[in-house]
Amino acid sequence: MDARISFADRLKTMQGDQPLDACPVRQVMQGIFGKWSTLLLQALGERPYRFGELRRLVPDISQRMLTQTLRDLERDGYVYRKVLPSKPPRVEYGLTALGASMLGPLTDLVVWASDNFAAVDAARRRFDADEAAGASGSG
Amino acid sequence: MDARISFADRLKTMQGDQPLDACPVRQVMQGIFGKWSTLLLQALGERPYRFGELRRLVPDISQRMLTQTLRDLERDGYVYRKVLPSKPPRVEYGLTALGASMLGPLTDLVVWASDNFAAVDAARRRFDADEAAGASGSG
Repeated sequence: MDARISFADRLKTMQGDQPLDACPVRQVMQGIFGKWSTLLLQALGERPYRFGELRRLVPDISQRMLTQTLRDLERDGYVYRKVLPSKPPRVEYGLTALGASMLGPLTDLVVWASDNFAAVDAARRRFDADEAAGASGSG
Repeated sequence: MDARISFADRLKTMQGDQPLDACPVRQVMQGIFGKWSTLLLQALGERPYRFGELRRLVPDISQRMLTQTLRDLERDGYVYRKVLPSKPPRVEYGLTALGASMLGPLTDLVVWASDNFAAVDAARRRFDADEAAGASGSG
């Protein structure tokens, strides 16, 4: 996709003859921004991990949610799942070439979010204070 | 944030002493990837728009949802709202400096999603076919 093309034209290309709810770009983006997807993709961008290692690395995630998120990421083609020939067998997860190619732009955006959280937070507080003061709608 | 720092260390920085559900990065990302946010941010990245223009540009969005999404984007500090001194008064929306600084990384990721939709779609079909064939868990 050429980002220099006008938004209206890009919208037509993205949309085809479907409603925007079914837009391909949205379908891809939803897989990347699931509740835990972004975090796990970044972890796996560092190196392959075994299931138990991921569980310890991200203690807030439940075992069930970790299983489901890894499965979704595998289904989308970002993550491979490999059974290691050990006793007992261990399962390793890592990024595929497709996942690795997405990690660059994803990380840039995560870095932006991290660098600019304070600005976003300040904007929210300002907006809420203006609202409370009845100043909304003044432009 | 320095993307070269290890994931575990970045996780600690992002998380602070809060659960990851409250992680600042996630809070920012959620605002960017709302159902219509990504689309509207890209439109406003082209030029400022009046409300009615946005409504015609994105016909799938309801008036109520457009109002709410613009309000959320304004609250996060990405979008300004300006009442134009016309008769009748018109309201214009555009990107703030904060919104413009985020648009670059966001657009890179949208371009990636658009360029790679076919690969993701193929991976999903392959995964589902393997599942249906009972081949899941074979690595």
